[in-house]
Amino acid sequence: MRVIYDPEPRSTAEILSPQEERLFRSRHEVIEWQGEDRDAFYAAHLPEAEAVIGQQPMDRERLDRAPKLRVIVNVETNFLPNIDYEECFRRGIHVIAPGGVFALPVAEMALGMAISLARNIHGEHAAFLRGQERWLFAGNRESELLSGSTVGIIGYGDLGRALHALLAPFRVRVQVFDPWLPEGYLRRMGLEPVPFERLMAENRFVFVMAAITTENAGMIGREALARMQQGANLLLMSRAAAADFDALAEAAAAGRIRVATDVFPVEPLPQDDPLRRVPGILFSPHRAGALTQALREIGTRMLEDLDLIERGLPPVSCRRAERETVARFRSMPVSKS
Amino acid sequence: MRVIYDPEPRSTAEILSPQEERLFRSRHEVIEWQGEDRDAFYAAHLPEAEAVIGQQPMDRERLDRAPKLRVIVNVETNFLPNIDYEECFRRGIHVIAPGGVFALPVAEMALGMAISLARNIHGEHAAFLRGQERWLFAGNRESELLSGSTVGIIGYGDLGRALHALLAPFRVRVQVFDPWLPEGYLRRMGLEPVPFERLMAENRFVFVMAAITTENAGMIGREALARMQQGANLLLMSRAAAADFDALAEAAAAGRIRVATDVFPVEPLPQDDPLRRVPGILFSPHRAGALTQALREIGTRMLEDLDLIERGLPPVSCRRAERETVARFRSMPVSKS
Amino acid sequence: MRVIYDPEPRSTAEILSPQEERLFRSRHEVIEWQGEDRDAFYAAHLPEAEAVIGQQPMDRERLDRAPKLRVIVNVETNFLPNIDYEECFRRGIHVIAPGGVFALPVAEMALGMAISLARNIHGEHAAFLRGQERWLFAGNRESELLSGSTVGIIGYGDLGRALHALLAPFRVRVQVFDPWLPEGYLRRMGLEPVPFERLMAENRFVFVMAAITTENAGMIGREALARMQQGANLLLMSRAAAADFDALAEAAAAGRIRVATDVFPVEPLPQDDPLRRVPGILFSPHRAGALTQALREIGTRMLEDLDLIERGLPPVSCRRAERETVARFRSMPVSKS
Amino acid sequence: MRVIYDPEPRSTAEILSPQEERLFRSRHEVIEWQGEDRDAFYAAHLPEAEAVIGQQPMDRERLDRAPKLRVIVNVETNFLPNIDYEECFRRGIHVIAPGGVFALPVAEMALGMAISLARNIHGEHAAFLRGQERWLFAGNRESELLSGSTVGIIGYGDLGRALHALLAPFRVRVQVFDPWLPEGYLRRMGLEPVPFERLMAENRFVFVMAAITTENAGMIGREALARMQQGANLLLMSRAAAADFDALAEAAAAGRIRVATDVFPVEPLPQDDPLRRVPGILFSPHRAGALTQALREIGTRMLEDLDLIERGLPPVSCRRAERETVARFRSMPVSKS
Repeated sequence: MRVIYDPEPRSTAEILSPQEERLFRSRHEVIEWQGEDRDAFYAAHLPEAEAVIGQQPMDRERLDRAPKLRVIVNVETNFLPNIDYEECFRRGIHVIAPGGVFALPVAEMALGMAISLARNIHGEHAAFLRGQERWLFAGNRESELLSGSTVGIIGYGDLGRALHALLAPFRVRVQVFDPWLPEGYLRRMGLEPVPFERLMAENRFVFVMAAITTENAGMIGREALARMQQGANLLLMSRAAAADFDALAEAAAAGRIRVATDVFPVEPLPQDDPLRRVPGILFSPHRAGALTQALREIGTRMLEDLDLIERGLPPVSCRRAERETVARFRSMPVSKS
Repeated sequence: MRVIYDPEPRSTAEILSPQEERLFRSRHEVIEWQGEDRDAFYAAHLPEAEAVIGQQPMDRERLDRAPKLRVIVNVETNFLPNIDYEECFRRGIHVIAPGGVFALPVAEMALGMAISLARNIHGEHAAFLRGQERWLFAGNRESELLSGSTVGIIGYGDLGRALHALLAPFRVRVQVFDPWLPEGYLRRMGLEPVPFERLMAENRFVFVMAAITTENAGMIGREALARMQQGANLLLMSRAAAADFDALAEAAAAGRIRVATDVFPVEPLPQDDPLRRVPGILFSPHRAGALTQALREIGTRMLEDLDLIERGLPPVSCRRAERETVARFRSMPVSKS
Repeated sequence: MRVIYDPEPRSTAEILSPQEERLFRSRHEVIEWQGEDRDAFYAAHLPEAEAVIGQQPMDRERLDRAPKLRVIVNVETNFLPNIDYEECFRRGIHVIAPGGVFALPVAEMALGMAISLARNIHGEHAAFLRGQERWLFAGNRESELLSGSTVGIIGYGDLGRALHALLAPFRVRVQVFDPWLPEGYLRRMGLEPVPFERLMAENRFVFVMAAITTENAGMIGREALARMQQGANLLLMSRAAAADFDALAEAAAAGRIRVATDVFPVEPLPQDDPLRRVPGILFSPHRAGALTQALREIGTRMLEDLDLIERGLPPVSCRRAERETVARFRSMPVSKS
Repeated sequence: MRVIYDPEPRSTAEILSPQEERLFRSRHEVIEWQGEDRDAFYAAHLPEAEAVIGQQPMDRERLDRAPKLRVIVNVETNFLPNIDYEECFRRGIHVIAPGGVFALPVAEMALGMAISLARNIHGEHAAFLRGQERWLFAGNRESELLSGSTVGIIGYGDLGRALHALLAPFRVRVQVFDPWLPEGYLRRMGLEPVPFERLMAENRFVFVMAAITTENAGMIGREALARMQQGANLLLMSRAAAADFDALAEAAAAGRIRVATDVFPVEPLPQDDPLRRVPGILFSPHRAGALTQALREIGTRMLEDLDLIERGLPPVSCRRAERETVARFRSMPVSKS
């Protein structure tokens, strides 16, 4: 296919291995943006382009110049309002993003952080470095097992699914809150669908894996936290906007719950932010999905779907923007990193 | 049954819930040691005892006084040379220990520590507390996924099996070195049996889960560590005697490998031990198995097997001492905590 | 929503339980076709309809009369050329079919028939009824285990996926041929993607689970069958058109392979069809998916997706017609029953 | 080791592959019985024998002649009263039998027969041969899914465990009745322990996988069958003595339950036995475990344990006779084939 390639802010080396880059360039007619004036570049090449890879504006005007366009690949993996989605849907142009590449890294990290919370691995390690560790049972008074415990997952998208798969051997009862999925659908997956309030109250481990929309921002607030069991574990893995961080800090500081978070209201978190000094929080500087090998898989999945589309088949390796949900994400990014 | 009950150093509250204690005392005729002279106590009660719960010496002389004895339960869960095992085996007295209760806690901790090593969860948390954390990809240059990786397990006893079960969703290739088990036996479990040297060389994650005998003490030495892949992860979960800690410290300090250890040559580790200052080690003060709820399960399993033995059935919930292997453990404890 | 309900040839009692029917009628404004002239009925009600449930023609003219239409639900679960799909896609009207309800019944039946072939359960039962059964090892000379064996799946859609899930405990190596899916995608599922020819040659069990298009009709022909291993097992579960039945009968009669089939070139198969007298075939009169409880789930999933669409969310419980593939199915039905 | 080898009624070709036979003979000093007087043969060779492979009498007198004996391997896999077990246990002689080799073949067959019952695969196949098959839903009025259903397993030994493993993807609730195992033990396996009566009443699928003792013979009698749900499925896989076949035939003939059986009160079942004419029974002439490849594994596991014993380690690949249970089996064989 004739492909406009303008992956910024991703670099080619980040998303494609040398072999994949060779494959990409030999298989497709790649027209790469190389610093020139973008309007001129797009004006010149859209008329023949079948695919666009990148995050540049694709408004109605640009789309109108691209009569052969079949797919736009967002390799930053966010569906932002840079595109006239309605026009794409009307014309059957796929808008896809390989956001699923982050699901497994985030799920592994979530599981690792959950066990770290439950057993205070990070805390006793830090104490050890200070010579203040507690040996054997003395350091385990508040430890608990994940096996046989209760788990609540908020949001059963890519992240939630990947986490669910890792939980299989632990024989936990898993509750899910996801208002975008039917209860029967969740039950057929072996899950127990519950309202948000019950999920907060009935689980030792609560994982926040949801994308953020205008509807669920701040849902993990004072009231929700008050429902949690004493000493229960809260893991914030998807978006900082899901939580009221003041309430979170309060609950952690009081020893009401244990908290792990990979996301923060401001990143990097200012050095003088009081959150840094709250005990009972496992801090992770937005590293759950940010894995080099996940970035590389962006290119892999992009190539897979370009190949399918070239062959007249629907894409399967990337996620597609959908009429109903893309609008809800317009004001903020849909997936991590 | 008539039961001599002398669980020291375990306390009743540690190993039995109040309901279980009631059940125990109502179901059996419990003769509890309460601080009196032990020789006199045993001399008085062995003649009618069907079960002994405890870790006191049971030499030939005491056994000869106990013609009705059917079982000795070691609730410390170690098979130490306090017992004349040969005489027990000859007479059909079961010697059992519910050591399996520690398997799941240790396995969960091992998995949690493995993910923590692979993603540096503990390290970036500690850095965060110091205000030196690295955000997003910057802190992830050396991170790796467990999913799809290679795992070697040294020792496929209770601990190794419990860990293996938790690894199922990660789709890892698992190699095992366990000279006490036939290769075909391991293959039937879906494992790849390999010699020790190959195991050290061919895996990103190496878990030491073996009991220690005179034969394998110090096996994780300089030569073995040199076989490991650059940046591979070593987790020492069972016994400190398995490793040469000087070599371990050297390899970790040089950045050759990443190390996590739950056991130490001396515990507590002296404050001035240079090991404490070695970078690249995740320290855990012997907490992997030392879980309150694991202790409680000691009592549960003890009661289960007493019940079976009373009904003329073989015990299944505790592990039994065996003629061939108990001798090999005589000089040191067999299982953790 | 305002719903035109015309499920023929399905009946309401088949697809909805009494409770679900009540829910359906109370929740939506249901306008049911009751035998009147269909053109008049549709002309009258399309202008206000938001949903159409049924298999009646929805050409451009009818669609033009339905400005509020948001979804067409095909409860026969086939995507036939009765609809102007392009216009639906252009306007964002979902065309959905709950064909997934048949996947689990077909997968269970496929597994049961595979074990029956491998162990000749049906054959020895029939022999038993005639007093000609062979006892113990005598009747087992050609039996084989599924566990640890090799399995090839042709078509990794709903049916193939459901079968794959059931195979997990058998520790089989699974190869897949599915030209609509990228190799990397299949590998991420733990499968080995292979060309069709290798799949036929390298597996003891070959399951045909593919939908039929003009491209793959007759693919299980003389040449493909000749590649199969002596005594290997072929299970035809999706569409008769996938196979050349003369070649199939020949291979089975010669004892080259064992065959099970749930589908036939003509159904019911004429009484004098010579296929009926071919030994070495396990016959099933198109019963794999035709389960009463599967039909009921059609209604369940239809209600789930109507609810989502009403709430402005994308459907998830039914499958959606897709621009690229619906065209390929136009000449024949896409899924079973 | 010095091994007396007298496997009758098994033949060497049955239990050892050519390579394994070579290994066996090169590794051990094999003294094979070749038709001579057995008393003289044993008298001559027992004094130096470390292992005996076979089913010949090993009473006190013979054991007294065998001071170096370490293991007796029963390759017929039954623990019969041909041995003075007490004396073996006293002296630490292992008595082992690789009966576990039949577990997987029986479990696969049980699953295959269960699906065949639930879907009437065998019945419609037989009807097809007669030209009386019913197509699509017509033949499925009484079909049911295993997925999501309820399963009861009687006897959680090797057979029951192997079956349990295969059921994992079906998401069934599994109840177990096994009076030799503690309830807590079963719960830790994810099973629900229940009394026999509840098991019969609360499951759609009941699998009889138990060894037979004087205590449970005839347990599947008129009263137990009356507890079963209308149309439920009963699978008799272990021993005919578990059931009252008159009651079984009555319940099947009346259409009360569906029955599959691999075992019969007399084998071969006489041609004029009325059981042969009872409708609603899936007949299997004792073929579930009788697989050529299972026999071969007898030799494999025997060699594995001989190797361990020679190295001073306990056997793990065969099952060991136990003081408590071997007595209960004395009057009849313990495991299948």
